[in-house]
Amino acid sequence: MPKDSDFHLVSEPLPPLSEGQVLLRTQYLSVDPYMRGRMNGVRTYADPVNIGQMMVGGAVGEVVESRNSDFPVGDILTGYWGWQEFAISDGTGLRKIDTNLAPPSTALGVLGMPGMTAYFGFLEICQPKSGEMVVVSGAAGAVGSLVGQIATIKGCEAVGITGADSKVAWITDELGFDAAFNYKTTDDYVARLKELCPNGIDCYFDNVGGPITEAIFSVLNTKARISICGQISQYNSPKPQSFAPIFSYLLTKSARAEGFLVYNYAERFAEGMAQMAKWIKEGKIKYRETIVDGFENVPRALIGVLSGDNTGKMVVKVT
Amino acid sequence: MPKDSDFHLVSEPLPPLSEGQVLLRTQYLSVDPYMRGRMNGVRTYADPVNIGQMMVGGAVGEVVESRNSDFPVGDILTGYWGWQEFAISDGTGLRKIDTNLAPPSTALGVLGMPGMTAYFGFLEICQPKSGEMVVVSGAAGAVGSLVGQIATIKGCEAVGITGADSKVAWITDELGFDAAFNYKTTDDYVARLKELCPNGIDCYFDNVGGPITEAIFSVLNTKARISICGQISQYNSPKPQSFAPIFSYLLTKSARAEGFLVYNYAERFAEGMAQMAKWIKEGKIKYRETIVDGFENVPRALIGVLSGDNTGKMVVKVT
Repeated sequence: MPKDSDFHLVSEPLPPLSEGQVLLRTQYLSVDPYMRGRMNGVRTYADPVNIGQMMVGGAVGEVVESRNSDFPVGDILTGYWGWQEFAISDGTGLRKIDTNLAPPSTALGVLGMPGMTAYFGFLEICQPKSGEMVVVSGAAGAVGSLVGQIATIKGCEAVGITGADSKVAWITDELGFDAAFNYKTTDDYVARLKELCPNGIDCYFDNVGGPITEAIFSVLNTKARISICGQISQYNSPKPQSFAPIFSYLLTKSARAEGFLVYNYAERFAEGMAQMAKWIKEGKIKYRETIVDGFENVPRALIGVLSGDNTGKMVVKVT
Repeated sequence: MPKDSDFHLVSEPLPPLSEGQVLLRTQYLSVDPYMRGRMNGVRTYADPVNIGQMMVGGAVGEVVESRNSDFPVGDILTGYWGWQEFAISDGTGLRKIDTNLAPPSTALGVLGMPGMTAYFGFLEICQPKSGEMVVVSGAAGAVGSLVGQIATIKGCEAVGITGADSKVAWITDELGFDAAFNYKTTDDYVARLKELCPNGIDCYFDNVGGPITEAIFSVLNTKARISICGQISQYNSPKPQSFAPIFSYLLTKSARAEGFLVYNYAERFAEGMAQMAKWIKEGKIKYRETIVDGFENVPRALIGVLSGDNTGKMVVKVT
């Protein structure tokens, strides 16, 4: 588990803008579980953030100075400029936010990477059919809370697994999950899953890995689909933990487990974004943000995400 | 591991045939790894064979008496009548063998269930593309030996993992696998795989599970596909053995693992059978049988399959 003292706040003078560049003042920073994987010093699907480098991450900010006619002063943009209060960009990867649609911070959540992760990672990998049983772990997080709602929109039953009674209440009372349980106060996950899913599980959207995920295996239906989005229970583990013999379960159930990265679907983000915005407008998708105030608190916010302190999307409000 | 004394030979008088029935004299019996799973007393995808019941299994035999005009005396048929020297059937599930195409015992191998397992389990689950690297475990078995050859036909490179130097020689010299290694004389499976697959593994066809399969995980390419056909290393394990954290690998590689049962593809067996027969005729698919003589030796033959004594398909010649 990272600790506050692993991070250092560094001040540097800003160079003047070159032609084509913009100066952004950060308003919101995203903190996400995947960031922990970048801190191991090894390349996975992306380069690591090495010791002494600035932490990467999604951000929202305002153009405060511009030598790029595509992005005039006053525009609210989102991009991947990382943990800095001011950022200089040549415009690559920047996207203007329509603040009439939803508050700008949602570009880091429901209308950003977590939203696309839920949309494509669930619909494309699980291929849910109406009437099926969908179980989501990390169900009150930025992604999981959306997956359960999309499942409901698609006519599925949704059961959430989360780590607090308040989260259980939120996802069942407000988001429309059919049922949920708090794994921290549940002794026998398998028994609870069998109780809530008496006809078995057709789709499992996995944010956590570990014992919660192992409990799913014996409740899977024939031709079940598992979408592997995250393994947050493992990210701070010093060495890989062993796992139940999932291949034996997949074999006898003709079931499938598949990992994905949201950027596999980058070409279809416009489609996903439009659909999520429509569902929000229709009241079919609700979201919540856990907002931490102050740039200096961004490490603490990340530690919070890794500890499950957030309900919905965790963002840091910088200004 | 089953032992000879777990089985008993029982003699019973045959009742006279009713209208619509045929009497079959068994010529060949199939012994296959999946049979071990039927002996655990629990229902998986099929009912168990309970203590005192006759063992199930594929068979080939001749009609010696008939009250069914579809199957006259002298026909050579294949069906699923299990471990008995004579069987009475109403014709359900029986199929006539074209003995001009290949010897009748191949109806239990390359032109039967193992052939269809290799054909559909590899092509449908792995979706191999020309130029990809395919690794097969249990590579000299009834199914694995065919998977490597189909991979080669499809323009892939095929690497086999097997348990004897003679098997390594057979699959590379005669079947056209690009490379193979004997896991019993290899210390570091991962190092050997990296040596033989310097550009990584795109498809893995898994017959064995356990440490061999775990070694694959760190050599998988992005968007790799794993077809889970069998987990023979686990079948005699008194309790489920733990497994490397495969979900973490599938996640970072956007990779997929999927189990299947050959009967999922039953509607397409005619297509698969025709293609396999064509490849045999063209000399593109070769096969070998390990034949055990004598009905009384069928338990020993099954134990042999579970121990890797066979090269290619293991069958018992009854008459």
